[in-house]
Amino acid sequence: MRYRLYYWPGIQGRGEFVRLALEDAGADYVDVARGKGGMAAMQKFIDGKRVAHPPFAPPFLKAGKLIVAQTANILFYLGPRLKLAPRDEAGRMWAHQLQLTISDFVLEIHDTHHPIGGRLYFEDQRAAARRRSQEFLRYRLPKFLGYFERVLKANGGNTCVGRRPSYVDLSLFQVVEGMRYAFPKHMKRFEKKIPGLIALHDRVAKRSRVKAYLNSRRRLPFNEWGIFRYYKELDG
Amino acid sequence: MRYRLYYWPGIQGRGEFVRLALEDAGADYVDVARGKGGMAAMQKFIDGKRVAHPPFAPPFLKAGKLIVAQTANILFYLGPRLKLAPRDEAGRMWAHQLQLTISDFVLEIHDTHHPIGGRLYFEDQRAAARRRSQEFLRYRLPKFLGYFERVLKANGGNTCVGRRPSYVDLSLFQVVEGMRYAFPKHMKRFEKKIPGLIALHDRVAKRSRVKAYLNSRRRLPFNEWGIFRYYKELDG
Repeated sequence: MRYRLYYWPGIQGRGEFVRLALEDAGADYVDVARGKGGMAAMQKFIDGKRVAHPPFAPPFLKAGKLIVAQTANILFYLGPRLKLAPRDEAGRMWAHQLQLTISDFVLEIHDTHHPIGGRLYFEDQRAAARRRSQEFLRYRLPKFLGYFERVLKANGGNTCVGRRPSYVDLSLFQVVEGMRYAFPKHMKRFEKKIPGLIALHDRVAKRSRVKAYLNSRRRLPFNEWGIFRYYKELDG
Repeated sequence: MRYRLYYWPGIQGRGEFVRLALEDAGADYVDVARGKGGMAAMQKFIDGKRVAHPPFAPPFLKAGKLIVAQTANILFYLGPRLKLAPRDEAGRMWAHQLQLTISDFVLEIHDTHHPIGGRLYFEDQRAAARRRSQEFLRYRLPKFLGYFERVLKANGGNTCVGRRPSYVDLSLFQVVEGMRYAFPKHMKRFEKKIPGLIALHDRVAKRSRVKAYLNSRRRLPFNEWGIFRYYKELDG
């Protein structure tokens, strides 16, 4: 099966959680919008005129005739197919539940720099962004990552779900990467509180296909258009 | 099967999307935290000391030994069991995808009154709330509800998914109810743009078990602690 991933071509964003799973599994996929004519193809699906089930927004995945949108839903679908999730219903749902909590966290990370609205420039919501980031770093970050640290530990410390690495582990790698990019000063201190997640991050980075991907041109660099953005004034 | 629902006792909040499905299906369930000792029982699960898979936050559902958290995940699980979702994989995932988009919308609704942080009072983030609400009413509300209006229409206008009513329809009923409570002045004008969703809302309200539920004491009133809150200054 050749998967077709549709996502904004210039950023890691939410698409990166899907890319990491496809790359780690060595799956056959096309990153459509990064190819010629890809943006127009993506727009067609969003306009929804010729699609029975139009996605609300990227990322979405085409697998044969099926179109799946919403990052966590895409991973739920791919998980067992890429051997990156348990196969039994309870295990699959637990992995999905964790991924949905990661989605919530990712939205809160985005809103640190855009608390008023995504349509406005950062410069137009600077003061609010500073206050929201303060609240985020002080209360939300420890709450979310403290939760995942406990979940990891309760599962033995090697993986979050079951005995084999799952897309949840890959996504937590990406969260640590992104947080380091966006809040380097704060993370330097904070990482001491989540030793299990940092060790997990390092193990994921060493997985052979992930390592090859990170060193390839397929891995876009972080930048100031994505979810994780670096603004010195927001970094604690 | 007697389901046990765990959610904050004083508000409709996210728990209401699950309550509506359970009520419409005539399912046997206990709203645990509203009973004696219920809050302590709920807290035990969140603390996670004796639970293999602790939820990050309410709502969560106990079904036999299984604990499912995250509103959309709970509905994904309950859907086919309550006959409120298609049974085939593609149909189930499409319903879930729509529900995840409703979850995103609900979070944005919440953040209109709490753009800086949930821990702070509304009064401490009033100016930011006014700006965020403006952005929300002007751009996000039409984008989200316009999308669901199109989805509904493309499916024939009676239901959003398949031929029978699903939890997605019940959730859209709740979204309309909540928006009417939180932004009455704005909704009065805006509803003309979503005639299909308003008709769907009215059909759901007339379903016999939903109607009985809405008239019962089990249905909590909207209030200023939930997701949908009325602040005159935010209403356009």
